[in-house]
Amino acid sequence: MTVKAYGAHSGDQPLESMDITRRAPGPHDVQIDIAFCGVCHSDLHQVRGEWAGTMYPCVPGHEIVGRVAAVGAHVSSHRVGDLVGVGCMVDSCKGCAECEDGLENYCDGMVGTYNGVTDDAPGHTLGGYSEQIVVHERFVLRVSHPEAQLASVAPLLCAGITTWSPLRHWGAGPGKRVGIVGIGGLGHMGIKLARAMGAHVVAFTTSESKRRAAEALGAHEVVVSTDPEAMAARAKSLDLIVNTVAAPHNLDAFTSLLKRDGTMVLVGAPASPHPSPEVFNLIGKRRSIAGSMIGGIPETQEMLDFCAEHGIVADIEMIRADDINAAYERMLEGDVKYRFVIDNATLAA
Amino acid sequence: MTVKAYGAHSGDQPLESMDITRRAPGPHDVQIDIAFCGVCHSDLHQVRGEWAGTMYPCVPGHEIVGRVAAVGAHVSSHRVGDLVGVGCMVDSCKGCAECEDGLENYCDGMVGTYNGVTDDAPGHTLGGYSEQIVVHERFVLRVSHPEAQLASVAPLLCAGITTWSPLRHWGAGPGKRVGIVGIGGLGHMGIKLARAMGAHVVAFTTSESKRRAAEALGAHEVVVSTDPEAMAARAKSLDLIVNTVAAPHNLDAFTSLLKRDGTMVLVGAPASPHPSPEVFNLIGKRRSIAGSMIGGIPETQEMLDFCAEHGIVADIEMIRADDINAAYERMLEGDVKYRFVIDNATLAA
Repeated sequence: MTVKAYGAHSGDQPLESMDITRRAPGPHDVQIDIAFCGVCHSDLHQVRGEWAGTMYPCVPGHEIVGRVAAVGAHVSSHRVGDLVGVGCMVDSCKGCAECEDGLENYCDGMVGTYNGVTDDAPGHTLGGYSEQIVVHERFVLRVSHPEAQLASVAPLLCAGITTWSPLRHWGAGPGKRVGIVGIGGLGHMGIKLARAMGAHVVAFTTSESKRRAAEALGAHEVVVSTDPEAMAARAKSLDLIVNTVAAPHNLDAFTSLLKRDGTMVLVGAPASPHPSPEVFNLIGKRRSIAGSMIGGIPETQEMLDFCAEHGIVADIEMIRADDINAAYERMLEGDVKYRFVIDNATLAA
Repeated sequence: MTVKAYGAHSGDQPLESMDITRRAPGPHDVQIDIAFCGVCHSDLHQVRGEWAGTMYPCVPGHEIVGRVAAVGAHVSSHRVGDLVGVGCMVDSCKGCAECEDGLENYCDGMVGTYNGVTDDAPGHTLGGYSEQIVVHERFVLRVSHPEAQLASVAPLLCAGITTWSPLRHWGAGPGKRVGIVGIGGLGHMGIKLARAMGAHVVAFTTSESKRRAAEALGAHEVVVSTDPEAMAARAKSLDLIVNTVAAPHNLDAFTSLLKRDGTMVLVGAPASPHPSPEVFNLIGKRRSIAGSMIGGIPETQEMLDFCAEHGIVADIEMIRADDINAAYERMLEGDVKYRFVIDNATLAA
């Protein structure tokens, strides 16, 4: 079937309205009427060809929420009319150790929600800036938030799980002191989630102007990372740091804030390398620098359920589909609190 | 009391025979007649002033074995005549979380066996290139190897525990595939220990010429790390890598060999930085780069007991005290299999 979408025909052209096709639902497929789609930095990088291997036409979007329109004959976990979400993946090999462990995000055969290889036309996946999507049931999440919050749930599917997964994996919770570096789309979710998990949350920003906002998000302490005294006062005080800043920066300034056995988890990969981290900073306190990429399906469901129970959603600014090019420019300037979400009803306009 | 030692009066002078004083044993002290002392790369860096803050005269040596000559009134764990060892530390604050956890090596008040601050003359600690040493009982280890092996036990006190601690902390054992990078003083112990722990051991070296030696030490596989095909064949295959190479090198070549959730532990700090590690290599499989520094006293005892039980010692070349300057030159050329050990009886000659 043909549906309206918003995408680009090349890296140097703006996004525009286009028609795309979606496959008819197979036995294990869920067809979803997309209500809203969050706007992630990855969307911009991919559609503009700033990452290698973009296939065109490119329709971005992997923070998808909507309602089930149809299900295949063998689908048991979702019913027509259910509120559901789709995140960064729409398929995986479903047979490797990673898939068996529910960490499909680390499967070598993971298929991204856009720009992934597929048998469907045009040969690569097309994302959530579209009216509908058809996805294998395994990659469809249940949303139990009230429908009125649905737009604000969308960013949980990427920004939420990307911070939730390392927070859970490395044990954020009561009695733990957790740092969140960067207060953007990911960081603002990290603060909310770590706070709700019961951790003591220290937010790090380069902007004094973000102090109040970070406190409002739930940070117990806000540290301006360019203030040497404030940083020195936190030396060896944190169990875990989730670092959401992809721009190259001095990692040592943060690893030195970790206690013995502490870990700093990087969730963004810089386009050019960070300055090489000081090895003695790791050796001297058995510290680690780790990486984490989104999260698996079971933990995404766990995160969504946790957020519904705790009333957690993203802070968003709703836009129309034809605002997307302007929204990208604002995103590059950091002018968004904290996530743009497309109202997909505007795709048909 | 005055004892013979071997040390240097400045960074640009060779080591020479000198007289030093040792304190009379206090209530918790153990006085040890040193039989043998291993020669660590750290000794060379410190005594030559290549690391900041060397205090002179400098008497290196922190792989000490010998026999208890006297004990203080309150010493209960060691008796005159016992075979004992002393490693990289002779004191710590004994009150912090690290000390309470038996990880005195990470205590901010840890006192190194040489070049540490002490009330004893001359105001800094003097190491094991000496006839005797006086050490707080907490930092004296029991040696249960046969006396005939005593010289070969000495390197366990630094090279042994430095590799044992990360192997144990990160769970080397049956069913785990462990890489050891570098086949020198540390690496040769890492291979022996990981093998005895029951892990599958893959040794990495830049020298094809070390293949047989690495196999003889217990490696199940030996990979020449400059061979791209051999490296590619091991991609995503290892649970843990202990990297003993302090010279700056490409870490990505090794992190890419880790499975999902694998860790590479650096146990040497380079004088100039490694090339900055590729963050996506960490993110894409939730890998970690960690650091580890020697080990705590309880785990050092555990390692010594394990080695005695399994008949593990270091491969050594015995030298006289007055060979030490020549031995340093050979060490710089990698011309030692795998550890020089001083026969401390030659100090009196």
